[in-house]
Amino acid sequence: MAGLFITFEGGEGSGKSTQIAALKARLQAAKRSVTQTREPGGTALGEAIRELLQHDDAGQGMSAEAELLLFAASRAQHVRELIEPALATDQIVICDRFLDSTTVYQGVARAIDPHSVATINEFAVGPMLPNLTLLIDLPPEIGLARAHKRSGGQLDRMEQESIKFFHAVRQGYLSLAAAHPERFHVLDGNQSIQSLEEQIWAIVAPHL
Amino acid sequence: MAGLFITFEGGEGSGKSTQIAALKARLQAAKRSVTQTREPGGTALGEAIRELLQHDDAGQGMSAEAELLLFAASRAQHVRELIEPALATDQIVICDRFLDSTTVYQGVARAIDPHSVATINEFAVGPMLPNLTLLIDLPPEIGLARAHKRSGGQLDRMEQESIKFFHAVRQGYLSLAAAHPERFHVLDGNQSIQSLEEQIWAIVAPHL
Ligand SMILES: Nc1ncnc2c1ncn2[C@@H]1O[C@H](COP(=O)(O)OP(=O)(O)O)[C@@H](O)[C@H]1O
Ligand SMILES: Nc1ncnc2c1ncn2[C@@H]1O[C@H](COP(=O)(O)OP(=O)(O)O)[C@@H](O)[C@H]1O
Ligand SMILES: [Mg+2]
Ligand SMILES: [Mg+2]
Repeated sequence: MAGLFITFEGGEGSGKSTQIAALKARLQAAKRSVTQTREPGGTALGEAIRELLQHDDAGQGMSAEAELLLFAASRAQHVRELIEPALATDQIVICDRFLDSTTVYQGVARAIDPHSVATINEFAVGPMLPNLTLLIDLPPEIGLARAHKRSGGQLDRMEQESIKFFHAVRQGYLSLAAAHPERFHVLDGNQSIQSLEEQIWAIVAPHL
Repeated sequence: MAGLFITFEGGEGSGKSTQIAALKARLQAAKRSVTQTREPGGTALGEAIRELLQHDDAGQGMSAEAELLLFAASRAQHVRELIEPALATDQIVICDRFLDSTTVYQGVARAIDPHSVATINEFAVGPMLPNLTLLIDLPPEIGLARAHKRSGGQLDRMEQESIKFFHAVRQGYLSLAAAHPERFHVLDGNQSIQSLEEQIWAIVAPHL
């Protein structure tokens, strides 16, 4: 047995949380220890940063550069305090968003120079890349409609962006997946929860 | 008239706050508009980050990488929201610590790869370098004794570091000043408040 690091990526409402819960249940049924976490967040520091990024008044008017650096700070702590130690004890770590979210949201959609994004991501993460990245692809209109329904209309700072932004995010994810076929799997999010769950299990099971 | 960007650097208790107050009073007496600010901080986001760095429980066990990225996030916002706009309206901006603090505290004393520190600093700051950097040099034993006296023994997270750390900080500052003679002025902090104030005025006045 060895640790396995699985990340979920995709737009708002694409089904990440739903599929993470399903995968975790299957892994536990298979007697594997699972550490479930998310970004930004995952540590006390990361959760405090998440609050700044999503809900705090102090985040109003935040520059794209500050936003990128806050995500990176949360990630740097997350890798060192939680992910590395869990993998070292043969846990399966499932993370809801990781460095690819930054590449896409800050790099592509906010148009920060991709070289700076890559350098800062590498600094934050070190050699700790995911073994598997499951990208749930979905037209943003469908995902946002689901997310609105879920939250009863309350939107966080990121969810208030325009539909154009979310189209750029989607395209950014698809290009990134094409550039890193060794760890990315692209899943069609526009199918039933059950059939997505089966597809994901077919991808993960051979790695156990 | 044009804006002027002056930063103060030096160890804890070297006299930065004292001299900033004195310089500000002299500039205002000379009818110049002054914006006084500090790092980390200076904006609502920066002050929230300062709290995480210095006092919050969430900062316990913070990695050196996360620390560097949080300072950089505060600085990125500071430059864009406060410093650039103030200089654009011909203010004199006086900042208590700026990017050189990161180069020295995170780069030299915490031994983060200097290339990463420089890249992240440049990303945060863009082209916005200080016109003048006043480094108040002082043996750390003297500065720390002053700082302890000032605060009645209450120390923040950074002030709890070892004396070895503060010696590395001092040497780091002196090397940096030697490498950037075009903007750095090194002042002997072990002299009276009054005579330091005179020296600083002699440096700043020709730039007005
Ligand atoms: N395949 C699916 N088909 C229809 N609705 C789904 C599907 N997957 C998730 N949902 C619903 O859409 C909403 C968003 O799903 P969620 O898993 O929270 O997405 P994410 O975590 O990616 O934002 C939830 O209400 C969820 O029940
Ligand atoms: N030149 C000086 N000689 C003696 N004491 C000083 C001098 N400058 C400042 N102090 C005192 O030392 C303490 C620390 O000074 P301060 O300006 O707050 O330093 P810093 O902002 O660099 O930490 C204060 O109590 C201050 O009154
Ligand atoms: Mg979710
Ligand atoms: Mg001070």
